[in-house]
This record gives sequence, C-alpha cells and structure tokens, in this order.
Amino acid sequence: MSQENIAIQTITATAISEMVRSGQYTAEDFAKRFIELAQKVDDQVHAFVYLDEKAVIQQARILDEGRAQGGELGSLAGVPIALKDAVDTFDMPSEFGSASLAGRQPRWDAKIAKLLRAQGAVIFGKTALPAFCLGTPAKTRNPHNLEHTPGGSSSGSAAAVAAGMVPVAIGTQTVGSVIRPASYCGIIGFKPTRGLISRDGLQPLCETIDQVGVFGRTIADVALVAQTLIAADENDLTTQGVLPRNLVNVALSEPPFKPKFVFVKTPFWNKMEPEARDAFDALIEAMGAETPVVELPTVANQAIDNLITVVESEFATAMSDHMKHTGEKVDSRTKDVVARGREIKAVDYLKAKRAIEPIAAGFDEFFDRFDAIITPSTLGAAPKGLDNTGDPIMNALWSYTGMPAISLPLLKSESGMPIGVQLIGQRHDDARLLRTSNWLLNNFDSITGA
Amino acid sequence: MSQENIAIQTITATAISEMVRSGQYTAEDFAKRFIELAQKVDDQVHAFVYLDEKAVIQQARILDEGRAQGGELGSLAGVPIALKDAVDTFDMPSEFGSASLAGRQPRWDAKIAKLLRAQGAVIFGKTALPAFCLGTPAKTRNPHNLEHTPGGSSSGSAAAVAAGMVPVAIGTQTVGSVIRPASYCGIIGFKPTRGLISRDGLQPLCETIDQVGVFGRTIADVALVAQTLIAADENDLTTQGVLPRNLVNVALSEPPFKPKFVFVKTPFWNKMEPEARDAFDALIEAMGAETPVVELPTVANQAIDNLITVVESEFATAMSDHMKHTGEKVDSRTKDVVARGREIKAVDYLKAKRAIEPIAAGFDEFFDRFDAIITPSTLGAAPKGLDNTGDPIMNALWSYTGMPAISLPLLKSESGMPIGVQLIGQRHDDARLLRTSNWLLNNFDSITGA
Repeated sequence: MSQENIAIQTITATAISEMVRSGQYTAEDFAKRFIELAQKVDDQVHAFVYLDEKAVIQQARILDEGRAQGGELGSLAGVPIALKDAVDTFDMPSEFGSASLAGRQPRWDAKIAKLLRAQGAVIFGKTALPAFCLGTPAKTRNPHNLEHTPGGSSSGSAAAVAAGMVPVAIGTQTVGSVIRPASYCGIIGFKPTRGLISRDGLQPLCETIDQVGVFGRTIADVALVAQTLIAADENDLTTQGVLPRNLVNVALSEPPFKPKFVFVKTPFWNKMEPEARDAFDALIEAMGAETPVVELPTVANQAIDNLITVVESEFATAMSDHMKHTGEKVDSRTKDVVARGREIKAVDYLKAKRAIEPIAAGFDEFFDRFDAIITPSTLGAAPKGLDNTGDPIMNALWSYTGMPAISLPLLKSESGMPIGVQLIGQRHDDARLLRTSNWLLNNFDSITGA
Repeated sequence: MSQENIAIQTITATAISEMVRSGQYTAEDFAKRFIELAQKVDDQVHAFVYLDEKAVIQQARILDEGRAQGGELGSLAGVPIALKDAVDTFDMPSEFGSASLAGRQPRWDAKIAKLLRAQGAVIFGKTALPAFCLGTPAKTRNPHNLEHTPGGSSSGSAAAVAAGMVPVAIGTQTVGSVIRPASYCGIIGFKPTRGLISRDGLQPLCETIDQVGVFGRTIADVALVAQTLIAADENDLTTQGVLPRNLVNVALSEPPFKPKFVFVKTPFWNKMEPEARDAFDALIEAMGAETPVVELPTVANQAIDNLITVVESEFATAMSDHMKHTGEKVDSRTKDVVARGREIKAVDYLKAKRAIEPIAAGFDEFFDRFDAIITPSTLGAAPKGLDNTGDPIMNALWSYTGMPAISLPLLKSESGMPIGVQLIGQRHDDARLLRTSNWLLNNFDSITGA
C-alpha cells in the first residue's frame, strides 16, 4: 500500500504509531500528509491559531533520525496531536484565546506536552478557544456544518479531530469544554478522573475544577493518549500518588459480564432540544427494563450552582493581577465573569468547594450496581451560529464531582448533525468506563435495532 | 523514697512514665496524687472545665492491671495529660468553651486522644478556653498571679501545667493560642510544623491554619508528647505521608556545633511592653555580634492580615449551620467574628490562602545559616485582668506560615511574671528546633551572665 492511499483523514493514532515504529512509513511522511490536509481544510474550519509547518516537519525528522540510529520510539511515535492553546509549549506561543496575552511565549513545556513528546508525539499546533475559555468565542466552525458552532471551550481541538486534521487532540474541561464540543463535532471526548493528569503549565481557569481531556475517533486512541498523560507530578499536587495504568488493554478487552447502565435524567431534561429528547427516549426504550431511569432533582441543581461559585471565585482571583496590567485588552464577556466572581463571599465559596466530596461520594453506590451512568452529552446538536458555543448544563455535575466522563458519537439530529451520548464512570475506574464505552460502540446498532 | 516525697507539682512526664513502667509506683499512685493536688489548686486557677476523679482512677487502674498481667506499657505510661476542651473524647463532654455546645458528648476519641491513650497516657480532664477559642474568655487564672490572665486560647491547659496539676497538656494554636499562654504561664509551649499532627476529632476553627501544640516543663517532656502525636491519619489529609520520628533522642543530644540564632524584630517591636523590650534588648546585647538582628517590615504585616482573612472566612463557614440552630446561645464576641467573616470576599480569601506557601518558603534560607529565629513570644508578661487573654501579634506570622515554634520560659518582668522567648525553626526540622531550645535553656545563664 502506498502512503498516498492511506485515508489520512480517518487514520487512527494507534495505526500511525504502529506504522512509524515498524518503519513502514516515517513520521515525516505523516507530518507532510497532515500538513497538506490542514492547509486545505483549516481555511474553512479555523481550528488552529498556530501551526508552523517547519516546526512540525522538524519534530518528525528528529523522531525518524532517532529511529534510524536504532533508538526505540514511544507509543505515540509520529502521531500528530493538537493542543488547545491553554497548554504551554516552549516552542510555540500560548495566548489562551485573549488579545491581552498576544505573543506570549512560554519558556517551558507543560507537563502533558513533555509526556506526549516523550512518547514520540508530534505537537502539531495550537487550537482555538474562547478568550480564557469562557469569554468571546473563537471563529472556529463545526466541520459537519460550517454555520454551526463546534462547541467550546476546546473548540479548535474538537474541530481539528472532526475534520481529520489530526487523529487526536488535547482539550481542557472546567464546566463542559471537552464533552460538549465532542458531542457537537461527532467525535469521542474523554475526561478522565480528576487528579490523574497534571495541570502544570496549563493556563488556570479554576484550580479546583480544571481537568485535561482527550479527543479522538476511537476508544483505543483516547485510551492511548490518556494513559500517556496519567502521571504523578510534583508541580500539581492533586496528582500525588498517581501510578501509571494501562488503559488500552482494559479498554479493548471484552467485559466479563454484559455491562449494566443506569440512565440519569437530570433536572434539565425539559431543556433538551425536542429531537434530542426524542432520540434519547428511543434509546431508553431500546435499552429496556434492564437499564433503569433515575431522576436527580436537587443535587444536580446545587452542584451546578456550587460549580459556578467555585469557578467564578477562582477565576476572578487568577485574573486579579492580569486585569490590573492588561485589563483594557480583556474582552467584555470575560470581564463580566470576573466582575461576578469578585462579588462572591468566601463563606459561599468554601461551602461550594467543600460540598464536592460528599456530592461525588454520593454517586459511588451507583457503581456497585452499574458500570456506567448514561445521560446526554449536550441538550442537542450544535446550535447554529458562532457567537455562542452552546450550553454546558449536561456536563456541569460531572465536572464538579470530577467523575470520569466520555462522549460517544452515537446519535444524529434529523439534519444529520451529531449528538453525543455521555457515559459517566466511577472515580478512578477510568479503565472500566473505557471498556464499557467500547462495548456500547460495538453493540449500539444491535441494541437500537439499527 | 516513698511516693509521698515526690514533688508531684514539678515531676516530669518522662519520670512518671519511667517509674510506672519499672513498677516503682503504679499509675494509680500518681493519679491519686494529681487529683488530690487539683482538688486543692483548681478552685483558684479554674483550669479544668471537666475533671472526673473516678474516670481518672479507672484509666490508671486499667494500665496497672495490664502491667500486672505482663503487658508492656507505652512511653507515656501513667502520665496524666490535660486536653484543651476542643479535643473530642468518647468518655468526656466536649463543649469548645461555648454555652451553645453545653453537654455535647462526642462518640469517638480524637485521633490525638487515641494516640495518647495507646502510649498509656491518662486523660486527666478537659481544660478551659474562650468560646470557640476566640470569643468570651474562660475564667481561668494565671497561677503566677491570680489577677492576671493565663493567656489564651489554650488557657486551661497552660495554667494546669503551670500550677503543676499535670506535667503535660494539649493545646491548639490558630493565631497565638499555644505560644502566648506558655509565655504568660512560664512553661514550655511547642507547636510543631503544620501537617505533622492530625486534627481529626478537634473542633475546627480554621482548617487551613489550626494546629495542635504541647505544653510541658521540660524539652524532654514536650518532645515525648509531640512524637506520640506525629502520625499520618487518613482523616486529616494534611498529615499524608507523615512518618514517625524520634524527637526525644535528637532534642536531648548535644548540637554538633554551637547553635546559631538570628534575632527577628517584627514591625510590632514598638508595641512591646517597655520592660519586655528592655529584657529582649539586653538579651540581644548579651548574644553579641554572632546573633544578627533582622527586621521584617512588610511581609509580617501582610501575613497577619492574610491570617485574619483566612481564619475569619473559614470560621464563619464552619459556624454557618451552628449559628442557624443555636445562634442565640453563641456569645457576642464570637458573633462579631462570624459577622466579619461572612463579609469577606472569596477573591480576598483565596489570595490570602495562596500566599501562605510563598511567604513560608521565603524563610527557608534563614535556616541555611541559622538554627533558629529568636523573637519574643508575647508583647510582655501576662496583662492584668481576665477579660482579655492578651495580644497574639507576635505569633501570627509563625501560625500563618506553619513553621515550628516554641516558647521558652527564660525571662521575667520586674514583678516576677514570666516572659517567654520564642524560637522558630525550619518547617519539618522540629527535632533541630527542640535540640536548639534545649541548648539555649542549658546555656542561657552563661550567655546572659546571670
């Protein structure tokens, strides 16, 4: 098979790494093909805010030279990966979506960038996001329909994967910034348990809540990237004691028993888009009596209010010095959030933060009886327009509690836009969530009779 | 030597434990002598809010029976120890100094109570404190002059040791609640590095800052009790990874080199009582050129403002439910603190909390050149009157930073009231601080030419 015949837009990270490690193709071969594709596609999608072809080729050549000299390549050998522009790298600017940070060049790689490079990944470029994740949206478009938002705040990372410009990408989630764009863009978005992945070298939105997530098109790929990122880091003490884990092997293995699901209807069920609600109602019907439906009235509301309190308080604090020095360049949406955050009382902040653990622990018993919670990733398909990245309300509870979450591209709107199915797992049992997800992907058609 | 000839008021915990373990006397012998003494003395001092003779005798008898049956007794065998009434015990009420908690009977021992009992200590009773540590003072009097305050908030624990009713006692410090009463009562008060001792089962004032401290009359005794308390506890994650340490051996050993001190004058030097300032000026003079004098202008002010912000925010949060249910029984001074705490903004709280580590780390370099910081424990001797437990301003910086601190009873006012000399050590080098303290106690007369 000549390299030109490889469907570059749908190839997996796992396949690329295998081919580069075996010497079938070079990392440079792939780098060139992906650059060529991005040059065609990104003028329309606007996923990238920084993409330096020469730097990409250079990274690939270094890997190829290492291999030629007998060096062993890592598990992501030659895999192009896009980073949300909230992740610092020593060789590319990091602007966090804001004019107030224009031209900011970090001196060091974020911990996760180091871990990716150590496994042979090629940092392909930096992807667009709304200012500070929560301000004015980026101009990124949804590859499924350019008139629609890709979701946010990991807008560019999700769109880049959906358009095939990279097989995998890194995002971050504080409210719904991985699961929502994955749902809108029809790809897999995986947010592991909070505390497994270091945030060192990431622009902070909310230290208590911020998490790293992974986008890809297969469970194997998101498991592969996620397991690369899971590591203890003395610069982010929330990762204290984290040990390496092999997610790929478990994720791809057959479950010992048929997985059990519980369908969670949040109090926001009535906010669902009618066509999405119908699709989920049909899914509930198809899954039958063995998948009970549970409503979560008060706890979800309280958790979301608490999440907003914690996020706005910590964001206003993080922005305090920045606003003093470059406040005039900060967009008005961000300023509004900071202004609200400044008014929050310490007592309310502390109550909201201290409720995380009891509320999260309250979900533990679900996982004695079920492998995963199943619930919508979003209220529906990607809304039209680029002025708004959509509503994260279906994600907030799982962000607040730090439970592992994944969006699977299983449903479609009448107009063919993707709608994600969200699975939630037990904290620190990420491997079971991935295995259950893989099972659901493989068995979805037979469940729904499609 | 008959047991009656032992000077019970000045006997050390170390000596009691040795005599009980060797079988020279029983734990019950000591328990009876201390109860007899407390019955004589505490009518005047009012150190105890709870002292049940029968329960004390009962604990001692159980130890004696264990020994009679060939059991090995621990390092605190038969040592009567008083607990500040902020420490829960399953067998005594715990009221935290407030009428709003009258009759509260905990179901479990605090972790530190368990650790003390496991080494054979006899929990002698609960000692008085101001309401919630910071409200209306207790009626405890200073054994050196009953018209004067013993200091606070560990008022009763310090007074009980100073009066000889127990050889050792447990206190807590959030601002200056161990070092200040130790200084006023003329005993040793030792607050180890924050994070070494669990606060599980203690009434919380401020989770971020609260620490456990030890009162005694010798370095050996405070080292012995402190090392009993130092242990990792899954119920207080700040103790994560803490390993046992033998403080006694190091504390009593000869320093390898003559200890070096740096005298720190805080920005509150001008607030010192004139006679105390004169005494410290004379000490600086006596210590000579090898002990430099350093001024700390801005950092100390900022740290104290930060400390108050963190304490009042967390205290108001901790009191939130309690005020709803039993607010009418809470004293007005406490209510004032809660009212102030409720007004603090989350942004200010977070800035104040996050500055702890950089400010604390700023002191690390001192300990490359010096063994201990030397500074006053208090602004002077215990003030007259019981309505006010004195000013903790000389302690706030070391409470904020969590550095180990000790007050040594080395100076006296003209009227003979004790004034403590405070030594501050490097975080986690508590053993060196104790060894340096022991050296200073042994060499003080030759330094000052007394």
